[in-house]
Amino acid sequence: MNMLEQWLSKTLNRLNLVDSMEQLKGFTRLSYSEEEWKAMDAFTEIAHEMGLEVRMDEAGNRIARWNPTPESESLPAIAIGSHLDTVVNGGGYDGVAGVLCGLGAIKLVKETKKRLIDPIEVICFASEESARFGISTIGSKAMTGLLDVEGVADIKDATGITVKEAIESKGLIMEQIVNAKRNDSEIKSFIELHIEQGELLQDANCDIGYVRGIACPTRLTITIKGRAGHTGTTPMGKRKDALVAIAPLITFISLTAEEISKTSPFPLVATASTIQLYPNVMNVIPDVVHLGVDIRSIDDHLKSEMTQKIKEKCTFLEKEFGVVAKIECLVNESSVFLHPNQLKKLQVIGEGMGLKGLELDSGAGHDVMNMAKRWPASLLFIPSKDGISHHPEEYSSIQDLRKGTEILAKFVLQEASGSK
Amino acid sequence: MNMLEQWLSKTLNRLNLVDSMEQLKGFTRLSYSEEEWKAMDAFTEIAHEMGLEVRMDEAGNRIARWNPTPESESLPAIAIGSHLDTVVNGGGYDGVAGVLCGLGAIKLVKETKKRLIDPIEVICFASEESARFGISTIGSKAMTGLLDVEGVADIKDATGITVKEAIESKGLIMEQIVNAKRNDSEIKSFIELHIEQGELLQDANCDIGYVRGIACPTRLTITIKGRAGHTGTTPMGKRKDALVAIAPLITFISLTAEEISKTSPFPLVATASTIQLYPNVMNVIPDVVHLGVDIRSIDDHLKSEMTQKIKEKCTFLEKEFGVVAKIECLVNESSVFLHPNQLKKLQVIGEGMGLKGLELDSGAGHDVMNMAKRWPASLLFIPSKDGISHHPEEYSSIQDLRKGTEILAKFVLQEASGSK
Repeated sequence: MNMLEQWLSKTLNRLNLVDSMEQLKGFTRLSYSEEEWKAMDAFTEIAHEMGLEVRMDEAGNRIARWNPTPESESLPAIAIGSHLDTVVNGGGYDGVAGVLCGLGAIKLVKETKKRLIDPIEVICFASEESARFGISTIGSKAMTGLLDVEGVADIKDATGITVKEAIESKGLIMEQIVNAKRNDSEIKSFIELHIEQGELLQDANCDIGYVRGIACPTRLTITIKGRAGHTGTTPMGKRKDALVAIAPLITFISLTAEEISKTSPFPLVATASTIQLYPNVMNVIPDVVHLGVDIRSIDDHLKSEMTQKIKEKCTFLEKEFGVVAKIECLVNESSVFLHPNQLKKLQVIGEGMGLKGLELDSGAGHDVMNMAKRWPASLLFIPSKDGISHHPEEYSSIQDLRKGTEILAKFVLQEASGSK
Repeated sequence: MNMLEQWLSKTLNRLNLVDSMEQLKGFTRLSYSEEEWKAMDAFTEIAHEMGLEVRMDEAGNRIARWNPTPESESLPAIAIGSHLDTVVNGGGYDGVAGVLCGLGAIKLVKETKKRLIDPIEVICFASEESARFGISTIGSKAMTGLLDVEGVADIKDATGITVKEAIESKGLIMEQIVNAKRNDSEIKSFIELHIEQGELLQDANCDIGYVRGIACPTRLTITIKGRAGHTGTTPMGKRKDALVAIAPLITFISLTAEEISKTSPFPLVATASTIQLYPNVMNVIPDVVHLGVDIRSIDDHLKSEMTQKIKEKCTFLEKEFGVVAKIECLVNESSVFLHPNQLKKLQVIGEGMGLKGLELDSGAGHDVMNMAKRWPASLLFIPSKDGISHHPEEYSSIQDLRKGTEILAKFVLQEASGSK
């Protein structure tokens, strides 16, 4: 391990608040939780040690900034960013990799002793994952002015705590989140580095992925209302069992996504990922079920087609089982295409470094999809072992993190204007 | 409404701790909860007002006893009993009807001024429903010596509270529950009256059901272990989605129960009634699912056949979806047949009263199934409106409660030996 790899390894542990990345239960740092905040505090401490200024904005995002000269203070920043929150029992690389490599890139840039003028930022976005509230990228939505503050304030987590309560428990004020929106002139360009969370890079034996676009999710909640009754005394023929009625839909969603993917130029993935059953006790026939469905494709038309097919299936199930179905659309985000010129620059730098690269699309949403709506933005992937993510076995090697850090540093040096 | 009906209506409200039986959310009095205890306290108060002695045994059962003479104290009792606990958002008749009609019967017997010697008891069993801990009829199991005290002590409810903790929060001592077991000589005969929780009596326009046997449940927990992954980045063909793998089993259980019922002399009902999904968040593919299945038939062979078919289906699903299935048997109780002679006596009394009766079987378990293993025991049903039970709309009329009370009173008068 060279010096940079040692630093990355140590800093990876620090950002994850552990002494070793081997954690059986993985990492749980939900949106606006104490755990997310502790990781953010670790970020702040590391950035301070590196001589960066750190501020927290009104949405809880932490912004670490290096102003090479006094005049840098008023100039637009070259920004690198990602997040530190995780799903329940998630991995320690999703999000963390981007924050870590961003810090590493500034470290490398500073070590060159080149006399730069443009400020460099590492942004640690708050609450990227939707695991707690079903809303993703809260921090980057706030920074870009895309957050519907009123619309999300009362959404509750599984324990009944609202977004507003969670945010205010961190000393922030819900109504002031709008002030986290930054001016166009504050940022020159934005890059996010992220683990792939897929197997394409590994399968192609590549070092780095250049991402063309992001397949943003459509999310539905499907509710089936049947009729409760005693499991022992209600004859099979007289039931309106909500779980029996929804079971074929789970199968249908999986099979239809496979079918659409086979017959289209772009893949589509669809997952019935959450279920709430009522009353969920042994001797009562299920009355109500809520099924959460996550649909993604770079092709927005395919997502609409999938949603339409689900609606038709629900109408069929209503008739077959004598139940009532309701479909609610929680999220319907259009796919985001990244900045082609910036992508090209990164590819040239990567080739110059001897990195084997692959152009690909992202099936997961990232903070960059919001930033891309305001500033020239790009997304780099580093390989994920076996594509495993949102899981304790999520893993990217220190060597891949180093390569990611180096390409970020070279990009920053190329983009930043220097003093003569 | 005659005087008895007025008394039943008022006492029904008191046992349910309400001023009106119209309750949108129904009744929630889980096993060994504060709510169950308050209803038991109401029972005690009513029994005291009627001049009965009330004691609580080591399992929390309340036993109200009328000793017509001093010598009655050492004689075996003619006992009537049921329970006051409910499922979540259940009805106010399931269990309560039996306790209420038992009290009403003593009231009628006392009003005849006949000089009896045999003591009469109304037993209010603790914790009949399995809604909280997945264990049913805890109180009557304890009274009959059938409770596996060590086996159940550490079973937890959904909030992590154990049976032992719940019981001890009521001032009882887990290790002393064995002392709730009564001697053979303490009881002469036992009757439970219960709402049908089905539609047979209503459909046949009958007043009373004479129950031949009880179809006790077999209960399974089926666990499917797949593999988690990001919903956006894992191609459909590379998934081991636990929910997709278990969905066909839900359909299979429902269809197979219908099929078995059509081709057998006795019906079988089977219900996938509970589900727990992990991690149950929008952007992670389901990893683990637990499905709770409740199977009932008066014919124990049919229950074994159903269990066997579920096992075979799980083996098939393991291969089809690349997952691992595990089947755990939580409960496997044999069917219980009630006392034929006592049933005959009740039928003769009912006919004498002009009640239109029906012989039938019970698809639900009841406290009487434990009592029947020790003493001559029988079970009477009164009609349930539309068969709805374990639901706020559960309903039996005051007229039907009166008829139930009257047949109990006549049985007690016939069975009890009197002084000359």
